[in-house]
Amino acid sequence: MKSNIQPAEGKLGILIPGLGAVATTLIAGVEAVKKGISQPIGSLTQMGNIRLGKRTENRNPKVKEFVPLADLNDIVFGGWDVYSDNVFEAATHAKVLEAGLLHSVKAELEAVVPMKAAFDQNYAKNLTATHVKEGTRYELAQAVMKDIQDFKEKNNCTRIVVLWCGSTEIYYEASEIHETLANFEQALLDDNKLISPSMIYAYAALKLGIPYVNGAPNLTVDTPALIELAKLTDTPIAGKDFKTGQTLMKTILAPGLAARSLGVSGWFSTNILGNRDGLVLDDPDNFKTKEVSKLGVLEDILQPERNPELYGDLYHKIRINYYPPHGDNKESWDNIDIFGWLGYKMQIKINFLCRDSILAAPIALDLALFVDLAKRANMSGIQEWLSFYLKSPQTAPGLPAENDIFKQLMKLQNTLRHMMGEDLITHLGLDYYQELVDTL
Amino acid sequence: MKSNIQPAEGKLGILIPGLGAVATTLIAGVEAVKKGISQPIGSLTQMGNIRLGKRTENRNPKVKEFVPLADLNDIVFGGWDVYSDNVFEAATHAKVLEAGLLHSVKAELEAVVPMKAAFDQNYAKNLTATHVKEGTRYELAQAVMKDIQDFKEKNNCTRIVVLWCGSTEIYYEASEIHETLANFEQALLDDNKLISPSMIYAYAALKLGIPYVNGAPNLTVDTPALIELAKLTDTPIAGKDFKTGQTLMKTILAPGLAARSLGVSGWFSTNILGNRDGLVLDDPDNFKTKEVSKLGVLEDILQPERNPELYGDLYHKIRINYYPPHGDNKESWDNIDIFGWLGYKMQIKINFLCRDSILAAPIALDLALFVDLAKRANMSGIQEWLSFYLKSPQTAPGLPAENDIFKQLMKLQNTLRHMMGEDLITHLGLDYYQELVDTL
Amino acid sequence: MKSNIQPAEGKLGILIPGLGAVATTLIAGVEAVKKGISQPIGSLTQMGNIRLGKRTENRNPKVKEFVPLADLNDIVFGGWDVYSDNVFEAATHAKVLEAGLLHSVKAELEAVVPMKAAFDQNYAKNLTATHVKEGTRYELAQAVMKDIQDFKEKNNCTRIVVLWCGSTEIYYEASEIHETLANFEQALLDDNKLISPSMIYAYAALKLGIPYVNGAPNLTVDTPALIELAKLTDTPIAGKDFKTGQTLMKTILAPGLAARSLGVSGWFSTNILGNRDGLVLDDPDNFKTKEVSKLGVLEDILQPERNPELYGDLYHKIRINYYPPHGDNKESWDNIDIFGWLGYKMQIKINFLCRDSILAAPIALDLALFVDLAKRANMSGIQEWLSFYLKSPQTAPGLPAENDIFKQLMKLQNTLRHMMGEDLITHLGLDYYQELVDTL
Amino acid sequence: MKSNIQPAEGKLGILIPGLGAVATTLIAGVEAVKKGISQPIGSLTQMGNIRLGKRTENRNPKVKEFVPLADLNDIVFGGWDVYSDNVFEAATHAKVLEAGLLHSVKAELEAVVPMKAAFDQNYAKNLTATHVKEGTRYELAQAVMKDIQDFKEKNNCTRIVVLWCGSTEIYYEASEIHETLANFEQALLDDNKLISPSMIYAYAALKLGIPYVNGAPNLTVDTPALIELAKLTDTPIAGKDFKTGQTLMKTILAPGLAARSLGVSGWFSTNILGNRDGLVLDDPDNFKTKEVSKLGVLEDILQPERNPELYGDLYHKIRINYYPPHGDNKESWDNIDIFGWLGYKMQIKINFLCRDSILAAPIALDLALFVDLAKRANMSGIQEWLSFYLKSPQTAPGLPAENDIFKQLMKLQNTLRHMMGEDLITHLGLDYYQELVDTL
Repeated sequence: MKSNIQPAEGKLGILIPGLGAVATTLIAGVEAVKKGISQPIGSLTQMGNIRLGKRTENRNPKVKEFVPLADLNDIVFGGWDVYSDNVFEAATHAKVLEAGLLHSVKAELEAVVPMKAAFDQNYAKNLTATHVKEGTRYELAQAVMKDIQDFKEKNNCTRIVVLWCGSTEIYYEASEIHETLANFEQALLDDNKLISPSMIYAYAALKLGIPYVNGAPNLTVDTPALIELAKLTDTPIAGKDFKTGQTLMKTILAPGLAARSLGVSGWFSTNILGNRDGLVLDDPDNFKTKEVSKLGVLEDILQPERNPELYGDLYHKIRINYYPPHGDNKESWDNIDIFGWLGYKMQIKINFLCRDSILAAPIALDLALFVDLAKRANMSGIQEWLSFYLKSPQTAPGLPAENDIFKQLMKLQNTLRHMMGEDLITHLGLDYYQELVDTL
Repeated sequence: MKSNIQPAEGKLGILIPGLGAVATTLIAGVEAVKKGISQPIGSLTQMGNIRLGKRTENRNPKVKEFVPLADLNDIVFGGWDVYSDNVFEAATHAKVLEAGLLHSVKAELEAVVPMKAAFDQNYAKNLTATHVKEGTRYELAQAVMKDIQDFKEKNNCTRIVVLWCGSTEIYYEASEIHETLANFEQALLDDNKLISPSMIYAYAALKLGIPYVNGAPNLTVDTPALIELAKLTDTPIAGKDFKTGQTLMKTILAPGLAARSLGVSGWFSTNILGNRDGLVLDDPDNFKTKEVSKLGVLEDILQPERNPELYGDLYHKIRINYYPPHGDNKESWDNIDIFGWLGYKMQIKINFLCRDSILAAPIALDLALFVDLAKRANMSGIQEWLSFYLKSPQTAPGLPAENDIFKQLMKLQNTLRHMMGEDLITHLGLDYYQELVDTL
Repeated sequence: MKSNIQPAEGKLGILIPGLGAVATTLIAGVEAVKKGISQPIGSLTQMGNIRLGKRTENRNPKVKEFVPLADLNDIVFGGWDVYSDNVFEAATHAKVLEAGLLHSVKAELEAVVPMKAAFDQNYAKNLTATHVKEGTRYELAQAVMKDIQDFKEKNNCTRIVVLWCGSTEIYYEASEIHETLANFEQALLDDNKLISPSMIYAYAALKLGIPYVNGAPNLTVDTPALIELAKLTDTPIAGKDFKTGQTLMKTILAPGLAARSLGVSGWFSTNILGNRDGLVLDDPDNFKTKEVSKLGVLEDILQPERNPELYGDLYHKIRINYYPPHGDNKESWDNIDIFGWLGYKMQIKINFLCRDSILAAPIALDLALFVDLAKRANMSGIQEWLSFYLKSPQTAPGLPAENDIFKQLMKLQNTLRHMMGEDLITHLGLDYYQELVDTL
Repeated sequence: MKSNIQPAEGKLGILIPGLGAVATTLIAGVEAVKKGISQPIGSLTQMGNIRLGKRTENRNPKVKEFVPLADLNDIVFGGWDVYSDNVFEAATHAKVLEAGLLHSVKAELEAVVPMKAAFDQNYAKNLTATHVKEGTRYELAQAVMKDIQDFKEKNNCTRIVVLWCGSTEIYYEASEIHETLANFEQALLDDNKLISPSMIYAYAALKLGIPYVNGAPNLTVDTPALIELAKLTDTPIAGKDFKTGQTLMKTILAPGLAARSLGVSGWFSTNILGNRDGLVLDDPDNFKTKEVSKLGVLEDILQPERNPELYGDLYHKIRINYYPPHGDNKESWDNIDIFGWLGYKMQIKINFLCRDSILAAPIALDLALFVDLAKRANMSGIQEWLSFYLKSPQTAPGLPAENDIFKQLMKLQNTLRHMMGEDLITHLGLDYYQELVDTL
């Protein structure tokens, strides 16, 4: 397959709806890395390596040296926001990164000025937008497409990806207008309120054959209409919801408990955070969207229907609390009630003093680089191999999602090996024990 | 390969050196399960299932229905101990299981009376043994072999496995006498003090072609001499050190951090426990053996030499504290200092209120059942595919151990699939996305 | 004053509205203590001692040997409930105490059968009452008075106290009908819905000159009308809300931070519990009442208006989550953001694995014994010296409450010393340093 | 007494043996406060207020406005150290305070250059001293006295206090030479190794009538010889061991448990820290001194001999672990096993993410200001009223120490009230309830 991948020549534009804490942390970080000031820790593409061949071969190249990804020096950033602050100002308000670091890349950040956003107050009641486009949904989509093309030209990019880093929209379910591309396009013309702002960006991107990454739990591209469009234009999509913090921890720990056939009777998860994301999620309608995204992972990993004695009575509860003293330093506390041999009870408590945007930025970067790779490798539609990065991975219709982060990692790594013509790894390893093999 | 596995006919004797908390919890539990009073939670062989074929095939048999394991009803227990208490008395002293449960299997437990132990005070200074064999090391080995054969006959067993559940011996390194079987047998005759008690049991078992499981971090079968003997008699060995509690958690969490290329600058692990194990480990010489076993896992998983920016400065410290108020309810607290994007610091705190023997018993059971399976499948020597259960897995000379519990699980499952002629699973899964496959 | 206290002769009836987890734990415990099976741990009156005189005098009698309290052997229990279960049945459902202990006092518990409750669904929506009195509020009050008098006669009691252990009622504020006794009695006749069930019990008790303890955060006796009645009949009242678990911990810790002038910028408190109390508090209206009771303590202790640099920005948030896996084993987790020298930030995390009823029962006992003592000592109205036991202590109009548990303890102990004619203790202690005193 | 206190006129010199993390944080902080850059949070003298009179009088002056303390602007710092770094350099190495803050007071810090230290390697094996005085112990004492007098003259001070902020010396017990002043002075002449470095500083100070504060658990002034000298020269002493972090928390929490008669069966305390203090305490001999200081507090507060059912079986264990990743950010984790009503078990876990020097600096300041006040108030010898600040308070011979921080606070506050002629506070408060008082 290797020969079929187009090389990563020229500049890659990363266009981001929502230039808030995550996006500005990403942009400032990439600029700092370009200058050699900082390291892109947390990014598998930049820091991680991948084992090739047998354990004894000692072949472990960096991922970025193994597959043909865009170089960080070839990335150009842009985006839209409901506030007019440039990225330096927005990053300063977000209070994620230290002033010293921001000043070292001040010029680069000031140069990124948001375009006006496509916005609808109904989808995020706690926000007060001041920098928005006017027009019907159809007109907004046209305007976003024009934004993209203008940006591409102006910045001399060969490729673009669109990366949603905006807020969580309120919860709603897909309806008839999301069923087919034809319905959807008609609804655009009708300025139908059931098309959320994020769908306008996604539509615009896919229509132009530009990959779209959904970093929030929003419905967006998880609809037949937009999947149809993605296939039509040979465009990869990846979603949904960046997997950070508590859910990251949960999809690490739950597979471990399941591996050992330990029962789980309760899992209580609480979060405190004080950034804009926390403010938006203080609205129950927006929290609902996030809750659905977060709740599913345990069921998918533990499979209570297959293991009723172990997981049939699991009580799973998630709370998110807006708590200003912590700002972006999101913190989670989990109480996990497990039981072992003969039903004896044990407990696990996990307190994760994390930083939301610090965890999100590198995976936003990786997703952008990987969907660009997928586009060049001619892989269109849902990219399930990127579920490693996502709280609520999209899959083919009828296919249960895989939320176990280790199976997701295996999927990602074997996909890369497959793309590059390397042997898949099964960890069987019986061949290291010569005599044994002989007897088989 | 399936056709080559001998069926699990007749009774399986599980002979245990060290009838303390773990062993009595195992025995009482199996008896309770036989009676339908309790469930063998925590045992992958009894409760777990294994996916076969594609995700959409929905084939997920129980492990015990997939591979031909001994049935719990065919198991007979016996063992040796440095105290003469029968298993009912020993279980009562251990205070792991409730009186009610113990009474429901009282007759079965009273029937298991320990044989006199092979013991040497130098290897466990904090114990006061009162029920020990006399004689040179050579004589002790002969006596243990006679014990095994007598037990097998008396209980009408077709197969035996020996399962070390005794204390941690003091730390010492292999010497010349452990280099070859010839040297070892000469040392036995010389009553050489460098042969520890556990080696006497292991030698006796392997000499008779009986599989040996090493549940402690002791050197024992991790020596060229005894590996040579295992191969000579076509006998599987598995070791070392049951992976429970804090190390279990560590080998679940560390792979998750490594997967995401998150840096780790420090990992402080403390334990409090008040059982006999805690008392033995209060002696620095015995703690050393355990410490070495526990320390290695992080290096093996994180590979600082390959990822110096992420793990080059890792400071890893482990403490075990004897704390009588908690008895067998071992509890751990971990502080993990990690760093992400641009080096920003985060922390994870894990408090695991666990129960040592409750976690150990089911994996002791699984190991016994699996080494018996391996013997019948003609798999001899080191069984690396069982490293899933072990803190410090033995491997072929020169082969780095795999401590990531998820790779260990994959190895175990793919080994079972391989044994039974099923396809190995790689989690690639591109075939679910039809169009994509067509284009490759 | 000592000579003025009436002796504790004859039997003391403790009548309890709400025979749920707390009440049944109290009753079963007292019966077990009477039989010598258990110890009344957590009860200051039974287990605590009190220092008298100088440190060097070594006079530290038990509280119960210092002041003339009712003897546990003279206590008779009765009560009302919305379910008809006797106390043995109710205690069994509550799952607080082990079956073995309950069986050892089974006969005594079965003998306590609840009288029908005065109830109004509007005040506790999540309860389904099946054992209630009929009639107007006036008729209910008469019926409760008759219940009390019948109980007193039948059990040959010399004294009665009424101890509210029922659920938290919904939040509401005092209105005109609670302003004067005359208004209140008119409202009773009018069957006015603004009179809550708890007020009916309190009115009945006080009318008969019987002390009333308010163990919930309900308004009840915290109204001018009922305080007027208490004074009229020379009756002590104590309330409100038993101080257990998280708030207990908070009123221990906050005074310590304030003592050292450490700043507090945030205090996040979450609770998980799965008992009937948790179910009732799952209704936002009932939670409001509890929240108000719990929120106040920090302000009262830290006094932000006097220490704006330290506590002016304090963000205090409390959450209670219904979590069935834990039953009565209420558990709290607190994150406290503090700052010290030059504003540097620190954090305290407290995880309290407590048991709600185990903490509440002994303080319910102490309050009953102390209000009985107060009655005999001719102390009527609000008993602020009992605020040691209460989350939201009633005080004289205009007098700020003292929530610092150590000042509350000092107040309680010095009140006892004062009652018994002993010197008050100031902890000055300069007199131990002879030379120093000479120079003053 | 008020009239007898000399006013705080002129400059106060604070001379500090040991210009490490605590001392430099203190000095930098006071300089920053003088400039109005920062606030002296954590200092009771500067930030705290004290209630005078009845609760309803609303008299709550700041402590510094109530008693005549030295003004921060009148303080001059100096000191000795085993390294020659000036305070700016030492503070930079200590990594407690941010570079920005240090730079804002750089000139002031650079001006404080340590005098050569009196040192003996035997008392702190893990230190490598490079800046020490030569001579016999007698000569060293003379040299230190000269240092003090030179400093006083050069800086035009009216008063001096000496404040030990050096390392913990190894554990040893008082011997004959510490029994009387005569013996001690002879031992100085004999250059007796049993006189530790800290005793040389203390002797020099007291000989000159200069108050001495012992911030470490060293023996020093806790000896008859030096107490004799303190009385002879009318000089106050205060010690020993600044009460910060875990012990602070312990003396806050334990009184709360005792107040409620809750039993305690175990208390496990572990610490991780990575500063120079941690390095010194990594030596078992030095840790012993600290352990003795830390262990005593629980026994003193809980009094197991008086409450054997509650505290007779208490198992108390303390561990300090050198853990470089945390630097000065000392962190503690406590597991507390308590039991309540009928012996039911509960647990409390406390994780304190503290900063050692940030907690120590303000209490070092307070102690310096208060011993200066004591000197001016003619209070000599042991100042037990300052035990509020100390882990292991010195008391009059035969007098049990009071470790309950709330009794210590009461003692401190009532001492201040007593000094200033205000009524002592007992928290009785019955007088707020008019009717009640009338009936007494």
